[in-house]
Amino acid sequence: MYVTEITSAQNPRLKGFVRLMEKSRERKETGLFLVEGFREILRCIEGGYTLDSIVFNARGATEEQLTALEKRLGNSDVRYYSLKEELYSRLAYREGTENFIAIAKERKLSLTDILFKKENPFPLILVIESVEKPGNIGALLRTADACNADAVIICDPLTDLYNPNLIRASVGALFNLQVATCESREAIQWLKANGIKIFTAQLQDSQWYYNANMAQPCAIVMGSEADGLSQIWRDAADSRIKIPMLGISDSLNVSVSAAVLCYEAIRQRGL
Amino acid sequence: MYVTEITSAQNPRLKGFVRLMEKSRERKETGLFLVEGFREILRCIEGGYTLDSIVFNARGATEEQLTALEKRLGNSDVRYYSLKEELYSRLAYREGTENFIAIAKERKLSLTDILFKKENPFPLILVIESVEKPGNIGALLRTADACNADAVIICDPLTDLYNPNLIRASVGALFNLQVATCESREAIQWLKANGIKIFTAQLQDSQWYYNANMAQPCAIVMGSEADGLSQIWRDAADSRIKIPMLGISDSLNVSVSAAVLCYEAIRQRGL
Repeated sequence: MYVTEITSAQNPRLKGFVRLMEKSRERKETGLFLVEGFREILRCIEGGYTLDSIVFNARGATEEQLTALEKRLGNSDVRYYSLKEELYSRLAYREGTENFIAIAKERKLSLTDILFKKENPFPLILVIESVEKPGNIGALLRTADACNADAVIICDPLTDLYNPNLIRASVGALFNLQVATCESREAIQWLKANGIKIFTAQLQDSQWYYNANMAQPCAIVMGSEADGLSQIWRDAADSRIKIPMLGISDSLNVSVSAAVLCYEAIRQRGL
Repeated sequence: MYVTEITSAQNPRLKGFVRLMEKSRERKETGLFLVEGFREILRCIEGGYTLDSIVFNARGATEEQLTALEKRLGNSDVRYYSLKEELYSRLAYREGTENFIAIAKERKLSLTDILFKKENPFPLILVIESVEKPGNIGALLRTADACNADAVIICDPLTDLYNPNLIRASVGALFNLQVATCESREAIQWLKANGIKIFTAQLQDSQWYYNANMAQPCAIVMGSEADGLSQIWRDAADSRIKIPMLGISDSLNVSVSAAVLCYEAIRQRGL
């Protein structure tokens, strides 16, 4: 392992990493993003992502962890950078230092790349339309992973999939999922072409979610925090479903709602 | 309505409000806390809380809103304070000014104060043991309200119930709920005395949650983010339940898990 030491805040490589952390545009232009945390980096490698570099806190990272990473990466040409703690902390988001950050190459998945999972009795797809908050999208991905959803489709995205807050909130689930990004129109076509029923979460003209039959190929479609689902999805729905709201609130957090709906599918399928 | 104008950052009344926002100890000593947002303040009044004062942004608050508040409050001796925008913003948490903050009196509820709701076929109680993050507790309260839980019991709390982040995350649900605070030992005694079955969320020695019979008086008990449930709850359980984790993660966010479990009770009860 060849390790480069970065000792100055003016180091152009370090400055590039900071830009990747802070700017969506920089991520888009370079196709690179940051993954913080040793466990998350392992998940990223397991998920088949290619790493560009690994940055570590000279003070906190152990020899054992470095060896483990090198072993997992095999004969790749990943570059290693050792940073003094005060420089490392410029890149680190988390409280309680994780000591490792990877720079990884983003992966574009289109609808036609999606492979259905053999172990699922029926496909389960989570569709997110224009959800805005990175923390919510991360939590939605965590739920999709916990339900072993075949894929997540993000329609008309307002947020960069590789936003550091999104990755953090997903606790690495992003790397274990097939996540495709496209327009709503394309997603509807693809779902219909694959015989997957569309279940839209909406309050109007809908039935209680547990009265809907989810023991069939299904896509659960969640709208944005502010506006809910757009008309194109409401029109495309095979089944419109809602969660009983029995108190003073008229809504739950979007990731909480998605979990209630996805786990109803799991329950009905008897997994 | 008699309104006092506060024009200086050095005003002792304003400084007192800032301390209430920032310091748990100040809230404890005075028995007062802050509620931000017009809708939340209305919910607080509807929930039967007593207000001490109302602070508003002189620039953003409308005459109509002030009249509506005064009408709701009737002949109470609430004091009104008008603040210039730059002073108001010292108290405001939210982006997008809400223009109103109330100072309310906290309410202590003990287990014996809890009244069961007549509209529920069986009592549904959400128990939270030592959950730490205010945002998680707020989200748990939002879920409990959405399920029309009879009460929430917070055992061995690590966080002040009137923390501003907690109130915000609950979107005012706190004010529509009976929330009692006590030791785990007392809660277990009370549940048993009232014939309420204890369902503990835990991975060990547990069955899938949807195989448990929740169409009976039940308490769903969630442990802390870091450590899960303590032994006293595991020993007291009538039924130990778990949510299938089918992906790489071994857990969901505590408020997401609670929603999946509480809504299973709602489903089984046919609400």
